[in-house]
Amino acid sequence: MSPDDVLAHVDATVDERLARLFELIRIPSVSTDPARADDCRRAAEWLAADLASFGANASVRATKGHPMVVGHMPGEGPRVLFYGHYDVQPADPLALWNSDPFEPVLRPAPNGDTHIVARGASDDKGALMTFVEACRAWTEVRGALPLGVSFLFEGEEESGSRSLIPFLDETAGELTCDAVLVCDSDMWDPKTPAITTMLRGLVGQEMTITCADRDLHSGMFGNAARNAMALMADILASLRRPDGGVAIDGFYDGVEELPEAVRNIWSRLPFDENAFLANIGLSEPAGEEGRSVLEQVWSRPSCEIHGVWGGYMAPGFKTVIPATAHAKLSFRLVAGQDPQRIRDAFRAHVGARIPADCKVEFQDHGLSPAVSMPTEGKWLKATLAALAEEWGDAAIAGTGGSIPIIGALKQYLGVDALLVGFANFDNRIHSPNEKYDLSSFHRGIRSWVRILDRLSKA
Amino acid sequence: MSPDDVLAHVDATVDERLARLFELIRIPSVSTDPARADDCRRAAEWLAADLASFGANASVRATKGHPMVVGHMPGEGPRVLFYGHYDVQPADPLALWNSDPFEPVLRPAPNGDTHIVARGASDDKGALMTFVEACRAWTEVRGALPLGVSFLFEGEEESGSRSLIPFLDETAGELTCDAVLVCDSDMWDPKTPAITTMLRGLVGQEMTITCADRDLHSGMFGNAARNAMALMADILASLRRPDGGVAIDGFYDGVEELPEAVRNIWSRLPFDENAFLANIGLSEPAGEEGRSVLEQVWSRPSCEIHGVWGGYMAPGFKTVIPATAHAKLSFRLVAGQDPQRIRDAFRAHVGARIPADCKVEFQDHGLSPAVSMPTEGKWLKATLAALAEEWGDAAIAGTGGSIPIIGALKQYLGVDALLVGFANFDNRIHSPNEKYDLSSFHRGIRSWVRILDRLSKA
Repeated sequence: MSPDDVLAHVDATVDERLARLFELIRIPSVSTDPARADDCRRAAEWLAADLASFGANASVRATKGHPMVVGHMPGEGPRVLFYGHYDVQPADPLALWNSDPFEPVLRPAPNGDTHIVARGASDDKGALMTFVEACRAWTEVRGALPLGVSFLFEGEEESGSRSLIPFLDETAGELTCDAVLVCDSDMWDPKTPAITTMLRGLVGQEMTITCADRDLHSGMFGNAARNAMALMADILASLRRPDGGVAIDGFYDGVEELPEAVRNIWSRLPFDENAFLANIGLSEPAGEEGRSVLEQVWSRPSCEIHGVWGGYMAPGFKTVIPATAHAKLSFRLVAGQDPQRIRDAFRAHVGARIPADCKVEFQDHGLSPAVSMPTEGKWLKATLAALAEEWGDAAIAGTGGSIPIIGALKQYLGVDALLVGFANFDNRIHSPNEKYDLSSFHRGIRSWVRILDRLSKA
Repeated sequence: MSPDDVLAHVDATVDERLARLFELIRIPSVSTDPARADDCRRAAEWLAADLASFGANASVRATKGHPMVVGHMPGEGPRVLFYGHYDVQPADPLALWNSDPFEPVLRPAPNGDTHIVARGASDDKGALMTFVEACRAWTEVRGALPLGVSFLFEGEEESGSRSLIPFLDETAGELTCDAVLVCDSDMWDPKTPAITTMLRGLVGQEMTITCADRDLHSGMFGNAARNAMALMADILASLRRPDGGVAIDGFYDGVEELPEAVRNIWSRLPFDENAFLANIGLSEPAGEEGRSVLEQVWSRPSCEIHGVWGGYMAPGFKTVIPATAHAKLSFRLVAGQDPQRIRDAFRAHVGARIPADCKVEFQDHGLSPAVSMPTEGKWLKATLAALAEEWGDAAIAGTGGSIPIIGALKQYLGVDALLVGFANFDNRIHSPNEKYDLSSFHRGIRSWVRILDRLSKA
């Protein structure tokens, strides 16, 4: 029996589903900010209560960091585990938002769609709720789900997922399943959803360089005393070669060239480099010379600086030689790169450039390898078919992003994840004025209704 | 008649003189901070009242920026104009102060001296008050000064002296004098005061680089989208050549090598490079290869970065590609360098490195040429003799600092300035825990008592 009754019920009740998403968005669960720890707990409690409201056996589980939410729904046949995260990126710079980042608003979009504008609207609260609402709709119409479903929501995805491995280690038995479902990735294009099968890894690093024992007057000490910020600039500049490649020794060891067959497929994809750049206000591709934008963001490792600060940063002027300088940066890794080796090579690269009378200190912000998943199998085929049924077509894609959970789930649960995404490229996730298309939300729910049906019969 | 009676009176009344300095220090007159404008005005009013309290005809004069204080005392013979500034540098980083920067404290020093610890204790409130107190002591003991004295105190020395030229243009007639005296420079060594005859110029610049139209997610756009902070690092690193010289085209045009005779004198000076660096926690000279530390800080032009900021700077981690990056930096200039040309060459250097789809904006923070003053003349001789009388010896020195007023005073009043300094090298001016030695204050007052006497007879 096809789930047309469930789909019709979804169509008739989008507004109340949106209202629940708004409630979750209003909780500013920024995991990286210690001042928001209570908000993270509130978001976890809200989710556990929401799962329980349609019959799940759900609870908030303490960790050394922000808590996990685990829920189970009974069901015949196979069991799927849905993973999502309730934490969000910081909203700053606040001045660039057109509305309160934690008070969602609906805005008409130029293409006739409607935008849900708020931090977390897309990443990952909006996406996560597409699955939760699909499960709720099934129980509302049919009284039960067509298969067994478990939920795992974490609160540290945006800040390194530190508690995840210990938690999986403890609860792997409870989380046993036949397939893992994740909704934290992109559409192929605005009309075509995608299953993502390649994810990059991440090595996050923070460094502090210290030279003199205090800030100095540049008139009295300029030239002769080492300037920590000048040293920082030299070191950051040294990370890329003139041709745009990463200059760290051994960085590309183990990185394979794209197979010719894949390169050919990608070159025929309807991906418009100019439009991709124009959408973010740019026109000149950066990065490695001679490689396409798609190859660079999907299959090449990267090095990006996320923040730098030091010296006098307030209005006005102060002729000081900064004694310390700080930077946060990360490397996105591809298959073949070992996160630990990349971290060590980076630190050696920096250390070799620190004069004997200066020093550098490092801090870790994440260390995860790239993941490559199979592009066949019955769960994938069933999901692809359900997506095609809803949207007319569906793609298998790579992504430049990193979802460290995927590797960990494979390791502890022994199953691959299916990454299904309804987010559009222009959602400004991690940026001011993040948005989620109302169609992503509505048709995302519909898609999961169909996927659950197809998976139950696979 | 030698001023022994005035000197004896100074010795007997140091505490009450110190109490007045403390009153002035407690006014947080940070000129670069718009929120401190009222405090700057309060400091000006305090000074005008203080000058009037011993008989000066003193007033606060409005400008488009912070006000000037002008005062006149009648007297026979020559007239000297004393210049000082009542504004101070910002106190940040506050966390590095051991006490409130605007609540002066006395601390015993290892050498048996006492430190006056506070922002402005040395630069320039402590130094300025040595002259004011010397004038007050003369009037207290003798009922009058031995020569005519005028006072000019500005409130924008630490933020570009923007109102100075317009003010001198208006009041040059009122400020006519035979010699200008300034107290804003260093001792030669802890036992020997100095008259400084070489000052570097300053070109202060702020720049903001903008790439994409918003901060981006590094997983989705990394490599391919230009990172504003990476571009900033490349540009800042490009400002120095591998040999430490400034890499801007034409930067050294017009810069002359140190005359052999001067180089020989300097090489014999009791200046200990290792001790100079060790005092600030360093051991390896930076800057231009093959040039001594003394040559670099006194007679070579420099380029120093004062502050850089952009991207995610809060605790935790955010994998963002910053859309904008900011930097403040300055060039210290020597004789032969034109500030306008240096500024233009810097901007051209940066502009040539900005990709076509990115942009840079600049802001000026000061533009003054280097100044070289004669090392002879009757006013200098008289001052040098008075200093030697008080301290046993006195030196003629260069300095790496910039005091833009000097060139302007020469231009509008037609006289050279005598820069007399009692500050020690380790005073941490512009840094946390700025201090002034009590001996600098006490013997500084005594020195000015003697200088006024000698100048009146020159």
